[in-house]
Amino acid sequence: MSGASGSSDIPAIGVLVSGRGSNLQAIFNAIERGELRARVAVVISSRADAPALRIAADHGSTCHVIAPRDYPSRAEAGATIVDVLRAAHVRVVALAGYKPILDACVVRAFPNAIINIHPSLLPAFAGGMAPRPQAEALAAGVKLTGCTVHFVTEEVDAGPIIAQSAVPVLDDDDVETLSARILVEEHRLLPLAIGLALSGRLTVEGQRVRLAPA
Amino acid sequence: MSGASGSSDIPAIGVLVSGRGSNLQAIFNAIERGELRARVAVVISSRADAPALRIAADHGSTCHVIAPRDYPSRAEAGATIVDVLRAAHVRVVALAGYKPILDACVVRAFPNAIINIHPSLLPAFAGGMAPRPQAEALAAGVKLTGCTVHFVTEEVDAGPIIAQSAVPVLDDDDVETLSARILVEEHRLLPLAIGLALSGRLTVEGQRVRLAPA
Repeated sequence: MSGASGSSDIPAIGVLVSGRGSNLQAIFNAIERGELRARVAVVISSRADAPALRIAADHGSTCHVIAPRDYPSRAEAGATIVDVLRAAHVRVVALAGYKPILDACVVRAFPNAIINIHPSLLPAFAGGMAPRPQAEALAAGVKLTGCTVHFVTEEVDAGPIIAQSAVPVLDDDDVETLSARILVEEHRLLPLAIGLALSGRLTVEGQRVRLAPA
Repeated sequence: MSGASGSSDIPAIGVLVSGRGSNLQAIFNAIERGELRARVAVVISSRADAPALRIAADHGSTCHVIAPRDYPSRAEAGATIVDVLRAAHVRVVALAGYKPILDACVVRAFPNAIINIHPSLLPAFAGGMAPRPQAEALAAGVKLTGCTVHFVTEEVDAGPIIAQSAVPVLDDDDVETLSARILVEEHRLLPLAIGLALSGRLTVEGQRVRLAPA
């Protein structure tokens, strides 16, 4: 698809997608509103039919489809992802509804630079993609849930937390209504976390992420 | 200590304590401000030297010390607690910093009527009394934690949740500053939950607690 362009002093990010791309759209919206100073240099989809690819192309981002099943191993798919991200000179990588488990070689290539968003207040309801964490929150009867953005480490959903946002669970919620309420916060939190990661002001010490004064 | 008095149409509650009694004080404050329509008919302490006993006596509540180690078994201490609570005709029992694990006979005697407050957003950081859940939240690097009021079941910290409140974790927090911030919400949430439980409008279905219209 078409190559991206952008002035080179605006930091480049990469976004990995698998589905409809609503969090990718939220990133573009934040950039267009001037809330996030970044350019989406490259979008990588694990599926050729992901609607997110259309959103990426519409915004002039370079797109790649890297489907793990097209590669002999997850490690080889991972090595290709690393090559593509490095070629685009990305400083931060956001997983925006990216479904495959990222190979450890990608995680190691971008330490404390890959951000994931998870639809629960971690460590509660870790593991699984939407709508499982939302369904687990409903089944557990919690009155507050939300979303978490965290750096990706080799252990799933256990990396250092950058930001969290809480939303109420209402008495008549089902998975759909609760997921929609959380998604509104995801769209706010993910661009915010990307901006923090790009700022160079985050320090990671064990599991704690702190923000240095501007 | 002195006997409590109060007009008999005001619902009676019992409060179990072990320590300083700040949550007991919060209950008395809510009653005095007219935010909670209840009377503390009886306070049971697991320790003879708990400062909470002074707070109870100052407010004219009947006090009992039932120290588990004074009884041949936890079940016999539990049976005494049940006798005292029944004699006081309490409709709801609040655990306000009560340290012993309640014997199952007490839990069974007051189904969906015993309320505990835990200083985390359950199911995260279940188990353990303050300051352990707060220390665990800090170590985990979460950006939001809080407190949870829930009905007590035979499984510790796993009963149906009545209400939760979130508080931020700040970069320079230690266990003391974080605990203090959570405690402010505990003092608000526990009387609120007692009022909900007394209202007769809560229904428990599996793990979910719902509030019927007034």
